[in-house]
Amino acid sequence: MLHMKTAAVRIVCRAIFSLSVLITNLVAQTIQSPEVHSDRTVTFRLMAPLAQSVEVRLDDASGTKAITMAKDATGLWSVTSKPLTADVYSYSFKVDTLTVIDPNVHEFVPNHFEQGGLFTVPGSPAQPWEQTDVPHGEVHRRFYTSKIVGDQRDFYVYTPPGFNPKGKTKYPVLYLLHGYSDMADAWTMMGKANFILDNLIAQGKAKPMMVVMPLGYGAPKILETAWKGGDAGQWQHNMDRFVEILLAEAIPQIEQDYRVIRDRKSRAVAGLSMGGGEAFLAGLKHPDLFAWIAPMSAATFDDPDKVFPALDAKEAGQIKLLWIACGKEDGLLKDNRKFKAWLTSKNIKFTEVETDGAHTWQVWRSNLVELAPLLFR
Amino acid sequence: MLHMKTAAVRIVCRAIFSLSVLITNLVAQTIQSPEVHSDRTVTFRLMAPLAQSVEVRLDDASGTKAITMAKDATGLWSVTSKPLTADVYSYSFKVDTLTVIDPNVHEFVPNHFEQGGLFTVPGSPAQPWEQTDVPHGEVHRRFYTSKIVGDQRDFYVYTPPGFNPKGKTKYPVLYLLHGYSDMADAWTMMGKANFILDNLIAQGKAKPMMVVMPLGYGAPKILETAWKGGDAGQWQHNMDRFVEILLAEAIPQIEQDYRVIRDRKSRAVAGLSMGGGEAFLAGLKHPDLFAWIAPMSAATFDDPDKVFPALDAKEAGQIKLLWIACGKEDGLLKDNRKFKAWLTSKNIKFTEVETDGAHTWQVWRSNLVELAPLLFR
Repeated sequence: MLHMKTAAVRIVCRAIFSLSVLITNLVAQTIQSPEVHSDRTVTFRLMAPLAQSVEVRLDDASGTKAITMAKDATGLWSVTSKPLTADVYSYSFKVDTLTVIDPNVHEFVPNHFEQGGLFTVPGSPAQPWEQTDVPHGEVHRRFYTSKIVGDQRDFYVYTPPGFNPKGKTKYPVLYLLHGYSDMADAWTMMGKANFILDNLIAQGKAKPMMVVMPLGYGAPKILETAWKGGDAGQWQHNMDRFVEILLAEAIPQIEQDYRVIRDRKSRAVAGLSMGGGEAFLAGLKHPDLFAWIAPMSAATFDDPDKVFPALDAKEAGQIKLLWIACGKEDGLLKDNRKFKAWLTSKNIKFTEVETDGAHTWQVWRSNLVELAPLLFR
Repeated sequence: MLHMKTAAVRIVCRAIFSLSVLITNLVAQTIQSPEVHSDRTVTFRLMAPLAQSVEVRLDDASGTKAITMAKDATGLWSVTSKPLTADVYSYSFKVDTLTVIDPNVHEFVPNHFEQGGLFTVPGSPAQPWEQTDVPHGEVHRRFYTSKIVGDQRDFYVYTPPGFNPKGKTKYPVLYLLHGYSDMADAWTMMGKANFILDNLIAQGKAKPMMVVMPLGYGAPKILETAWKGGDAGQWQHNMDRFVEILLAEAIPQIEQDYRVIRDRKSRAVAGLSMGGGEAFLAGLKHPDLFAWIAPMSAATFDDPDKVFPALDAKEAGQIKLLWIACGKEDGLLKDNRKFKAWLTSKNIKFTEVETDGAHTWQVWRSNLVELAPLLFR
């Protein structure tokens, strides 16, 4: 049997070479980029013999940094970075005037405007957003026709490790909202929300919970509009409709299809940037639905009294956690501070979280790592 | 109430403009590409003032075609294609010597070696792979540690519309394997397997079934090896181990976690290219496990007697369908015909499906549209 197997495999392997011939053309020009080294430096390479200048545009916690590349005699441009903090990075190349994705990278930023490649610099020990050898939850992609918008849309649902649809355990739910220009998979692909929860749950730091990541556009045409210069009516329509969708379409689907606890104390709403503004809107207008509210780097409100006329200290007293995070280098920090001053003037309690970093995914991943352990306690 | 809401929304919209300022820089240089017109022509655009030549490399059913672009006074290169067949297309730009993804496209080819953008030319009526207003199944991404390979890996599971984990209905399962260089999500992102099944099930053409799409590498290092020139031992190891994983890790997980029928007549194995070779190996060596076998554009075997020593007309008589598809322009057609001649010499029945097209996703999507209705009858 062993002999037979070996012989068979030898033949298979010979046969497979016909496929390998077919493949050779595809891979002949492939080079390794990015190459992440064990000292946390990263080498970037690009074959571009005719280019006059090439640089890496690397997105770190503070924003985008340019790293100049050098060309060798074959036309291969390359550079090795200094050691990077263990994290997930997006980047692109600027080739003369053209911004391009590295033709050799395998992971991509899912975004309507900001294209890029992705790579991970692993930590030792592993960072909370890395896929490690712990029990994993699942990520479900769901599709439905939104009656409110009239479009076909998708959204993502994380079920925690050991989730058993036939079991008796019921879970609390974190509704986690993405930013403007993101796609529905931003919180899994960029935010690594599923791995963060896997790791925190395995370490006993977070309660097992579901995470629901809906598509955050109430009016998807906002994407085209911004592109052509922005339009006030569209922004209004977009935010307004999204909260309607969350309440009338997302929550009912989840509460019908999954074993979740249907109770305000078991519902959280968090989000980043536009999604942070949506988290404020959904949470502060509906504390009867959400006891946990966590906007990150949020879009805020010039005249909060008009946006939240019913909100006072008594109404807000129901809220178990109002956790407002923003990076100290974030362009929205000033607006966030203004909004927090308004909350204070109304005697509304909140937790202020000002971290290092700008309007970047490094900040939002770290936010989620800090936030998840606080929820549903 | 209506008045209050309108006022609130007006304020939100004013506030959100602070976010919009933050965003303006991101989108200022964004142009629309590709633009799919109602007459099924497609306009491609690229801003590259310093480039000497730019062309589109468009992947159609027959392979990759170059379309020359022209530059205007602003440095914007563009071209409008002739009307295309309604389908999903991948493409890249060749800028002088550099092959790049369109910086403005939103969907990407998930592949280790062949990067590209994706767009859909919709049909009228909709083609079977389009997301239409019918009940949708879900796509579950699962993660686990493979004991056989010793890595962290993912795979995808389609559950049909109305799938109820708490219900009594049990489903048959199609194991659907990707090709060399693909990632685990190839059959959903490129193959649109979930939408194809949604549409066929809605039309009553296919039986409701689950589709399981495992990562097809038994030895993931095969990806590095091929890249550096190919290695016989690695190819052998890769195919061998994958069939082990399918039988010992994928099928048991699925049959434990989902309501599926655990019966050879309710298991099918299909795949493309390398995955077609794996479908032959798994199916023809284990007709006790799979009654339905459907290799597409498959890698085949030089000496089938040695690979399948136990296979004869009696053994193969258990197989309800051996469906062997290959495009007439596919580089593997000749090998496929040789393998079919061997089956004929052994009196083993099969269905021969030779279609138009080459080694392309247009062919494989159409294959799945033809195959799914035949299964589990």
